[in-house]
Amino acid sequence: MQNLGYYNGKFDIIENMSVPMNDRACFFGDGLFEVAYARNGKIYALSEHMTRMYESASYLGYDMPLTQEEFSSLLYELSAKVDSKEQLIYWQVSRGTEMRSHAPQSKLKANIWVTIREKQMLPPYSPMKLITAPDTRFFHCNMKTLNLLPTVMASIAATEAGADEAIFHRNGTVTECAHSNICIIRDDGAIQTAPADNLILPGVTRAHMIKACAELGIPCVEAHFTLEELMNAAEVVVISSGTQFRPACEVDGKKVGGRAPETVKALQEKLYGDFLRKTDI
Amino acid sequence: MQNLGYYNGKFDIIENMSVPMNDRACFFGDGLFEVAYARNGKIYALSEHMTRMYESASYLGYDMPLTQEEFSSLLYELSAKVDSKEQLIYWQVSRGTEMRSHAPQSKLKANIWVTIREKQMLPPYSPMKLITAPDTRFFHCNMKTLNLLPTVMASIAATEAGADEAIFHRNGTVTECAHSNICIIRDDGAIQTAPADNLILPGVTRAHMIKACAELGIPCVEAHFTLEELMNAAEVVVISSGTQFRPACEVDGKKVGGRAPETVKALQEKLYGDFLRKTDI
Repeated sequence: MQNLGYYNGKFDIIENMSVPMNDRACFFGDGLFEVAYARNGKIYALSEHMTRMYESASYLGYDMPLTQEEFSSLLYELSAKVDSKEQLIYWQVSRGTEMRSHAPQSKLKANIWVTIREKQMLPPYSPMKLITAPDTRFFHCNMKTLNLLPTVMASIAATEAGADEAIFHRNGTVTECAHSNICIIRDDGAIQTAPADNLILPGVTRAHMIKACAELGIPCVEAHFTLEELMNAAEVVVISSGTQFRPACEVDGKKVGGRAPETVKALQEKLYGDFLRKTDI
Repeated sequence: MQNLGYYNGKFDIIENMSVPMNDRACFFGDGLFEVAYARNGKIYALSEHMTRMYESASYLGYDMPLTQEEFSSLLYELSAKVDSKEQLIYWQVSRGTEMRSHAPQSKLKANIWVTIREKQMLPPYSPMKLITAPDTRFFHCNMKTLNLLPTVMASIAATEAGADEAIFHRNGTVTECAHSNICIIRDDGAIQTAPADNLILPGVTRAHMIKACAELGIPCVEAHFTLEELMNAAEVVVISSGTQFRPACEVDGKKVGGRAPETVKALQEKLYGDFLRKTDI
């Protein structure tokens, strides 16, 4: 298949798929999602994505119809149906289906959504253009929920400015990007990224980066930094499962970074080198 | 019909309705909604609800497929298909349908969703039980969007506590309820409600209440108040299109209000008396 959409056991190409109007995703954004990159039959860091989803689902009180292992097997099974060897796998759960009511009126079973599309991995050293935007989101940013309107608004603003992503800040303190984490490489060689509290997503690639820093002997600090520190940093690097680990060359039209490319490349190799070699297409 | 679901020209009973998986409501909560009470063929304050929706839709850059007047006519047409003479009319727009991408990749036309169900108007003087909860929402609460997860979480907490609604506060300052506005009646006879900024919805019934106060010669102050002021107020009143104007008797298990029932009843009569008489069933 060219692409695949799946909902509670039914599948077809995405454009043909429909879902019940009463799915709570439709009225409340009452759901969670994950995205992972798959290459030649291997899904990158799948168990970490699944663990994060199940932790949030437990916090929100969702009754999951599959175990983590069953859900992972389902993704591999669906991935095998799609032609491309490079895929973006998106999966989502919603609390359930019922007549609209803020608090559910009955015991619900969560719904399973999946989409799989072709997605070529981006060249890792193609630098990104960014804008800045006030972080107007809620205080549950540690969960990957479907309440994404501020992200949508910032992404539209970035696109309109000819940029690739938006950096969120709360009163000048950087949190993360609209749909990525972010770090800076300081002139003293250390990496700095905002701490994992309720204002940012504890990103899978971010966690890999922290581990890679330890292995490479690069100091890594989890502490807040300001927009000014970001503008003057040796490098500004966007981190996510979709963009991987990509430096920025421009923020709000001003040149940034570019002074520590060797560190960026060393981390890129540590994060993706083995995976790319093992899944050679 | 017993109830009715409508999506872009198709309709059926709600339980049979489905929507495209790629509707942006499903992935981002990228949509707006309104709810109004209809009685004997008349929809209460419809033009005000429509105006609010169209203002937010314009702010979000939605391309609406119907004018406000056409949308209103559609609601009346659909309302006439439903058996009950007392209805809760819910309508929603989403930005459009497209392969998932934070910023739309093409020019989209908004989708129209409607559900209509039987809903008996609540007895106006049946007092409500409330809980308090931290307001963890985003900073776009002036729009009635589908990003409702904090509202869902607070509503579940209220239900679990045997209460009807949750009062949101930011560090002890009351904003509104999970899905209603709120006001207090002070011992000096004045009504006080939080100002209409980006932290609360500018409610239609709230606006009617402010107008009714002016007509009845009741002082009305739009200013912040604390949880402590609320606990000690002469009355605590929940305001929304669904609950109308209903006093609370209990907050977090403690008795509140009950000292100015005549003011509550005078406002209830001013807000709904004419409407109820004109739409006598």
